[in-house]
Amino acid sequence: MNRRMIFYMIGQVMLILAGLMVLPLAVSLIYRESCYSAFLMTIGIALLVGLLMMFLSKPESKVIYAKEGFVIVALSWIILSAIGALPFVITGEIPSFVDAYFEIVSGFTTTGASILTDIEAMSKGLLFWRSFTHWIGGMGVIVFVMAIVPQQNDRNMHVMRAEVPGPTVGKMVPRLRDTARMLYILYIGLGVIETILLLCGGMSLYESLVHMFGTAGTGGFGVRGDSIASYNGYLQWVITIFMMLFGINFNLYYMIVRKHPKEALRSEEMHYFVGIWLGATVIITALLFKQYGFGGALTKAGFQVASIMTTTGYATADFNQWPQLARMILLMLMLVGACAGSTGGGLKIARVVMLGKIIKREVRHLLHPRSVGVVKFEDKAVDEKTLSGVSAYLAIYMLVMIVGILLLSFDKMDAETNITAMTSCFNNIGPGLGAVIGPTGNYSSYSAFSKIVLTVSMLLGRLEVYPLLIAMTPSTWSRKA
Amino acid sequence: MNRRMIFYMIGQVMLILAGLMVLPLAVSLIYRESCYSAFLMTIGIALLVGLLMMFLSKPESKVIYAKEGFVIVALSWIILSAIGALPFVITGEIPSFVDAYFEIVSGFTTTGASILTDIEAMSKGLLFWRSFTHWIGGMGVIVFVMAIVPQQNDRNMHVMRAEVPGPTVGKMVPRLRDTARMLYILYIGLGVIETILLLCGGMSLYESLVHMFGTAGTGGFGVRGDSIASYNGYLQWVITIFMMLFGINFNLYYMIVRKHPKEALRSEEMHYFVGIWLGATVIITALLFKQYGFGGALTKAGFQVASIMTTTGYATADFNQWPQLARMILLMLMLVGACAGSTGGGLKIARVVMLGKIIKREVRHLLHPRSVGVVKFEDKAVDEKTLSGVSAYLAIYMLVMIVGILLLSFDKMDAETNITAMTSCFNNIGPGLGAVIGPTGNYSSYSAFSKIVLTVSMLLGRLEVYPLLIAMTPSTWSRKA
Repeated sequence: MNRRMIFYMIGQVMLILAGLMVLPLAVSLIYRESCYSAFLMTIGIALLVGLLMMFLSKPESKVIYAKEGFVIVALSWIILSAIGALPFVITGEIPSFVDAYFEIVSGFTTTGASILTDIEAMSKGLLFWRSFTHWIGGMGVIVFVMAIVPQQNDRNMHVMRAEVPGPTVGKMVPRLRDTARMLYILYIGLGVIETILLLCGGMSLYESLVHMFGTAGTGGFGVRGDSIASYNGYLQWVITIFMMLFGINFNLYYMIVRKHPKEALRSEEMHYFVGIWLGATVIITALLFKQYGFGGALTKAGFQVASIMTTTGYATADFNQWPQLARMILLMLMLVGACAGSTGGGLKIARVVMLGKIIKREVRHLLHPRSVGVVKFEDKAVDEKTLSGVSAYLAIYMLVMIVGILLLSFDKMDAETNITAMTSCFNNIGPGLGAVIGPTGNYSSYSAFSKIVLTVSMLLGRLEVYPLLIAMTPSTWSRKA
Repeated sequence: MNRRMIFYMIGQVMLILAGLMVLPLAVSLIYRESCYSAFLMTIGIALLVGLLMMFLSKPESKVIYAKEGFVIVALSWIILSAIGALPFVITGEIPSFVDAYFEIVSGFTTTGASILTDIEAMSKGLLFWRSFTHWIGGMGVIVFVMAIVPQQNDRNMHVMRAEVPGPTVGKMVPRLRDTARMLYILYIGLGVIETILLLCGGMSLYESLVHMFGTAGTGGFGVRGDSIASYNGYLQWVITIFMMLFGINFNLYYMIVRKHPKEALRSEEMHYFVGIWLGATVIITALLFKQYGFGGALTKAGFQVASIMTTTGYATADFNQWPQLARMILLMLMLVGACAGSTGGGLKIARVVMLGKIIKREVRHLLHPRSVGVVKFEDKAVDEKTLSGVSAYLAIYMLVMIVGILLLSFDKMDAETNITAMTSCFNNIGPGLGAVIGPTGNYSSYSAFSKIVLTVSMLLGRLEVYPLLIAMTPSTWSRKA
């Protein structure tokens, strides 16, 4: 294994982190908050660690394989979060490191689960940083490195594949660096439009940016205790629409930019994505009709379904109080997730659709044992390796869920709380069900051990299990291989 | 599709049902209970329906394919249960047909979930019948038909494959009829030994037979309100051991009978089965140590883990009151189930182990994209069709669980109750978690709609989804095919 290259690349990530932290530093200076010194110190630490790693691990060869790709991603995210948590600890606004680490991993993984009991008491700079990590983690920090650092070779496809979620990773354009750049251009472009629309609705620039970060990364951190509930209907619909837009495969936007809008609109995955949103919204609107009237029910249902499906996790209502069927629909949507190649988490629509087609093929095979079963997706035959990868992912996904729920059961919470906490964190959503961790609650009542379990689950969910699994396997680190 | 042959074979099943019902008829006569007339009437109806079907559908050709196999199994089980439910309705001991159908499907599918609020008030003949359906359904009624009806050809492998659970069905001996006979000889033999051991522990012949039926079919119906809790420790351990014995692949017993005990003891699936039982028992014993002392904790943990793993569902304690971790371990074991080729339900150990190996292969494939991934099970390479079948089964299994939980959410129960009711019924276990359907509760509080959902789930679980799915697809019935 090319260890030097691993640490060299992680060093690069640390430098990028230092650079990105200038933004919250600026915010804290603008608002004349004392937390600016914590950002300065952290920037210093990130620079020191990054330069030291790059200096000590100057690689002899830049050649890396899949294994290095997974390890780079896993370690980057772990170290990135450790340094990213420092401003909270240094300022004392989150004194416990476990809590601060939970909060910032929740940020980077775009989960949006919080241990804060009083958000509105936090300083603006720290809340800005917390939300900005959604934006960084949404598209991926290593993809960002690729987009801006010159002289990367296409070996880095291994790294990109490990960081970008979904069953397959397509390059939009032949050169990897151009693909990464294109992704960030689209990401920033959509974000600018949303920010302007939020400004038009009466939000301050600060709040517009924070909510744009939360929407774009499908994260869910905000600045108010009641999430989005106290904003007006226009702002709620802007956020609903942009949550959905950020839940769509970015390749489709690239097609539109390249003037192939018809092709983009034919996307099977997008049809399912919008179809599921419509279906769930209609059912939940019907269930809430009595409580809120038609307009209110539609606004609340549409927002909440989009928020859960895209794994954002914003709330405009305490859906924990909704009828049981509505609650369970939301719980099931937590598993489905958004489109592959978007910033949303979960199993991903593409995988769910392929699993449905695998079932159909199996039925055909049972009836006609000699039939040749080809599974088609997006009008193309899917190769067997991808299909078996999708099936294996479902198996490992269930395994992580089961182990997580068992580990949380050491704590004092009830089954519903533990099951939905695990579902919500592993799928990078945020709120769960039950009074404790519902949309009006937070994760502060969990023990430190449970918080670590949930923190690891968030990382496993965002990185789709394998990178961490591979990085933690001793044989990965053996000299022999 | 060969419709005549389908109805002809279902007619045979009805005749067998009439014959089997002579046993509970005899019991009701011995105890001089008035329910004997209900059994007589039902036997008459079964004979009439059976003979009529055989007479009207005399097949021109005996050739059937996989499709007919699935349809025969699905319809047999549906009609069998409808007629089997009649004695409850005729006597008025369960006045509602939906309730009676739930109870008898729970019997045939070896689930053991009950809607009875006062078991001990029921007549002995009906309770005997209820438990006897466990015994009939455990090994499969169509396998029974094959074992005793002469002149069956090997086309019936399609039928057997549809009724016997597990990822693959092996013929022990070249001729199918001999395999079916051998299965029943082993099944009866083990049952006789258990009955004698229960008699030695002080149970009456009636109770010994009822509990042997419940153990052998891994069903769980008994005669007392507290299940097995009020029987002595010896009887509890006899039942523990026999639940485990009936949860093991019957092929292993055949190997032992054929004097290949070493081969039988090498079985990978059995090692996992016993290993999981040991592991879970040790952990739960540790958790219950304070409450019951070492002996009591071990007896209760060993019994309960065996009962849940083998999907029997007997209880010696109200495990709903146990620590959360113990409750969740039991819930997770509900999913795993027993060995393939046993009378137990659930996903089956063989599938779970193969899924684990599919994950391992995927990791290997991610690290070395050009590696050839062979999955071995029981020292043999598993072919790709079986593996993709196992993956597809996990997908459809999850789908059924999700749909079932959503449908139950129309009812007034909480999430834990609905989730565990669905898990318990679909995996053919019996009790769930929560006060309502826990080991001290029953399913009577659910609405008629929910009971139908759970009844269908029990059938889907016992027949492993596909037969019912295929029988309910309109294209199956089209003339063209």
